[in-house]
Amino acid sequence: MTNEGSSGAAPVSRLADEFNKLPGIGPKTAQRLTYFLIRMPEEDARSLAEAIIAVKERIILCTTCYNITEINPCDICTNVNRDQTRICVVEEALDVQALERTRSFKGLYHVLHGVISPMNGVGPDDLRIHPLLERLKGDSQVEEIILATNPNLEGEATSMYVHKLISPLGIRITRPARGLPVGGDLEYADELTLSRAIEGRQDF
Amino acid sequence: MTNEGSSGAAPVSRLADEFNKLPGIGPKTAQRLTYFLIRMPEEDARSLAEAIIAVKERIILCTTCYNITEINPCDICTNVNRDQTRICVVEEALDVQALERTRSFKGLYHVLHGVISPMNGVGPDDLRIHPLLERLKGDSQVEEIILATNPNLEGEATSMYVHKLISPLGIRITRPARGLPVGGDLEYADELTLSRAIEGRQDF
Repeated sequence: MTNEGSSGAAPVSRLADEFNKLPGIGPKTAQRLTYFLIRMPEEDARSLAEAIIAVKERIILCTTCYNITEINPCDICTNVNRDQTRICVVEEALDVQALERTRSFKGLYHVLHGVISPMNGVGPDDLRIHPLLERLKGDSQVEEIILATNPNLEGEATSMYVHKLISPLGIRITRPARGLPVGGDLEYADELTLSRAIEGRQDF
Repeated sequence: MTNEGSSGAAPVSRLADEFNKLPGIGPKTAQRLTYFLIRMPEEDARSLAEAIIAVKERIILCTTCYNITEINPCDICTNVNRDQTRICVVEEALDVQALERTRSFKGLYHVLHGVISPMNGVGPDDLRIHPLLERLKGDSQVEEIILATNPNLEGEATSMYVHKLISPLGIRITRPARGLPVGGDLEYADELTLSRAIEGRQDF
């Protein structure tokens, strides 16, 4: 086809294809990003490319909590000022960051790296559930496990599975409160959230 | 702060910052993309980084039409099968691609690389308008200029400016038809589009 060269050729469509592989980036956005990069100063584009390489080369998983880190074990696991008796179990490394920003949890973490999802072919063995069990068996200090998976169907199912697995150990197992989001409107809350908020009502 | 290490440290936040600089990517999306990249196989991430570098190293602007290309002059300008008597003036290299996909234009292009926008401090001299004038003066073959800037305020103003500049050359100047988008609903068309469609009605 004589039209083949019209896109400015291979490097352009190749970059658009690469962007298109990222989540939430469709073909149109991929193309827009590609053309933005073409117009970008070279050093800025190079800086993005280098940041991608750096993340892949330097970021590993902590072999204790499976959070992402540059050093193993990670800063949180080795921090003696943190409460070693509490472990908060989350789905993703991003959740650790979200919790850290609140500054309301001073314990340790355990990142599952996903949820049990038969639909997507993800079973318990694909997650870091067994390492959690081993960790708890080998560490008698732990007094509380907070199961902080997402409050949706898959998150709940995963928490139930983990709960069943670790309850024989006799450790206290809790989960974050369900209720009205702060700053929200009562009339806009969905039924389930509202009923959970009433059921779990707290003393004023 | 002892929480500093919780994000998995510098490379993670650096990559999130880099993604955040791209258009349409806010801090949340940047973070999501970063964590996606961390989970990605290393070769895929490397492939993205390399595609970024390749685009910056290999893509240049054609010195005739200012479209993006790997060779100068570009494939379109040097293609003898294309109609050398028609030049379609567009805002961006992306527009060339969109027009090429239609296969309904077989002439040449001229990419302005933007629109006149006093609000954003973009004047005629920031665009490739004068090179177009020089090109037309030096090329007596050209019989038609199609001003295909975007059908919005800034695009129209830019076309008006270019029109004024090149009309003394006595070349026929046209623009794409305004009218109802194919597949659209008449009742949902905005007033301006509908009135343009009626004004420019064509024989059945």
